Amino acid sequence: MNGFSYSLEARSGLARAGTFHTPHGEVETPSFMPVGTQGAVRAVTPEQVRRTGARIVLANTYHLALRPGEGLVAKLGGLHTFMGWDGPILTDSGGFQVFSLPNKEIRDRGVRFKNELDGSEMELTPERSIEIQNALGADVIMAFDECTPYPADESLARIGVRRTLLWIERCLRAHARPDQALFGIVQGSTYPELRQQCARELVALDLPGYAIGGVSVGEGHELMCQITECTAPMLPEDRPRYLMGVGLPEDLLAAVGYGMDLFDCVIPTRFARSASVFTARGRIRLTHRRYRRDAYPIDPSCDCDTCTAGFSRAYLHHLFQANEVLSAVLATVHNLRFYQRLMVRSREAVLAGGFAEFRREFLEEYGRGR
Amino acid sequence: MNGFSYSLEARSGLARAGTFHTPHGEVETPSFMPVGTQGAVRAVTPEQVRRTGARIVLANTYHLALRPGEGLVAKLGGLHTFMGWDGPILTDSGGFQVFSLPNKEIRDRGVRFKNELDGSEMELTPERSIEIQNALGADVIMAFDECTPYPADESLARIGVRRTLLWIERCLRAHARPDQALFGIVQGSTYPELRQQCARELVALDLPGYAIGGVSVGEGHELMCQITECTAPMLPEDRPRYLMGVGLPEDLLAAVGYGMDLFDCVIPTRFARSASVFTARGRIRLTHRRYRRDAYPIDPSCDCDTCTAGFSRAYLHHLFQANEVLSAVLATVHNLRFYQRLMVRSREAVLAGGFAEFRREFLEEYGRGR
Repeated sequence: MNGFSYSLEARSGLARAGTFHTPHGEVETPSFMPVGTQGAVRAVTPEQVRRTGARIVLANTYHLALRPGEGLVAKLGGLHTFMGWDGPILTDSGGFQVFSLPNKEIRDRGVRFKNELDGSEMELTPERSIEIQNALGADVIMAFDECTPYPADESLARIGVRRTLLWIERCLRAHARPDQALFGIVQGSTYPELRQQCARELVALDLPGYAIGGVSVGEGHELMCQITECTAPMLPEDRPRYLMGVGLPEDLLAAVGYGMDLFDCVIPTRFARSASVFTARGRIRLTHRRYRRDAYPIDPSCDCDTCTAGFSRAYLHHLFQANEVLSAVLATVHNLRFYQRLMVRSREAVLAGGFAEFRREFLEEYGRGR
Repeated sequence: MNGFSYSLEARSGLARAGTFHTPHGEVETPSFMPVGTQGAVRAVTPEQVRRTGARIVLANTYHLALRPGEGLVAKLGGLHTFMGWDGPILTDSGGFQVFSLPNKEIRDRGVRFKNELDGSEMELTPERSIEIQNALGADVIMAFDECTPYPADESLARIGVRRTLLWIERCLRAHARPDQALFGIVQGSTYPELRQQCARELVALDLPGYAIGGVSVGEGHELMCQITECTAPMLPEDRPRYLMGVGLPEDLLAAVGYGMDLFDCVIPTRFARSASVFTARGRIRLTHRRYRRDAYPIDPSCDCDTCTAGFSRAYLHHLFQANEVLSAVLATVHNLRFYQRLMVRSREAVLAGGFAEFRREFLEEYGRGR
């Protein structure tokens, strides 16, 4: 694991401020990773992503393996060159996607499924997932795990943990690139003992980073909090901790409060495309007619390129009504910046020793718009 | 007409290099105006448009009057503020759009048609077109003319010229803002004598600029050239000359050669969205499988943000295949820059006294890809 380390700089309660060092640069944590499923963060250029403050982005192994294929990405110089992002990149394992498919067959060997683009039979195994991720060349690659659906009874959750632990060994054996850090993923559904057992066994493997998976699968805020609260303390202090697929601003703040460092979610980008944007006073929907004549920017307190350029809510309302692509661009820039600022302000609050107070004040203001 | 003037700086043959001064800045000509139909150049931010070198953009009166309505745009500070473009803007009269509608009724009074958004009966007259354009507040506004379809027999073309000349008087009487320049439009279909008669009568009105309209309506390159060749010499030397809705690179070069200064067309933006991009060696379609593994930028000789950032044809091919919005963004940036460079290089060639040679060399190279 050349070039990877995590330095913990401060704590405030359980919340952490640190720096994650990668071969493609440093990531100050807590940090939110915009999602670039197909090798592109939807609707925005890498330069626009960078200008929101994002330092690390996520790309999806499953989608890129299907199209354009990891071999082509490798031939073209790897994912960084391919997508024009010279900062750190994380790829998921593809597990979450194939476990979400309707007709898949899960065995200890791996998962068989139908290629949704051409209908052909495909298989994803720990070895194959790592092979793809090695070819894509992201800085951080994720273990191929069994993502237990929600709800799941304890025996199903136990199978997920068993397979996840079986598969991490195979992932480690298959992993061929020391310039990529392979993170392990804690499963165990909503069962604290399973979560802790899974975490304990993964930690024994001395991995460069750990993720909590099997969240954001419909369990809701409270259960997500419980899972994170019981799992995060099991993870080593000197490694980055990544909560997968989370979430809304209130979810992120809760998770930072439990000591998580890295996050990814499609919410800021997906919501932006349907006119749902975040403000200090809560989320608003720009297509609502109350914004038709509104001369204010999306959020007068926001420093994103959309708000500071003076684009009004009325203009964005118009662009959404007229189905102009620019609506998605401008709203995405705003939402991504909102998430980055949330992380930056959380970090500053941790460094200043007042995270809980910051969180309380933020949520009080954020809830005021309702 | 405060703040408007045109200075002719050089000629090469009939081709002109000049500067068009407007209240929102100077435009070096020849110049291409990107089209922002609904108050936004499709898929790109004003900043991205600016970085392509564009200095003046076009917006459509018809579309903006229907949605969001010119009153709202005016209330929000006018079109410049509304769309976040602080350079010069030109609005068309809406005539071209309403004459293209299936069920319209044309009389000397104006044109009655159905609002395509809500089905209501609407009317566009010279007075109403100018009222809308005064409210929108572009730098250059266009006369409401009768755009004769192609093909048209001479009697139909004659009616178009008569109405155009009748209506320009009403436009001038209605026009209430001296900070906006009202350009006249020469009609006359493919009939040189009608074109020249129309031009002669418009020139007698001493307008701040002149356009050739009724082209790009299906007449093809040769007839467009003939129309431009016979009309341009009728227009005053010290006013900008705008060829409406033209066209492909070869059309623009021909028209510059006849002494035209300003152009607008949806081609670079519309083609970009369907993966058709311009290169020094002709147009290519990025969705073609020959680009699937192509590591080169769209055009290795191009200095646009897409090409210089290193995005490969293979990456763009992938983005188009995956229906990623970013494909439209990156291709639009490229095509707009291609058009701007075509104009800048034409201008430099005129200033250097070698426009005909530049045009010949450009077209030789441009045709090589076929």
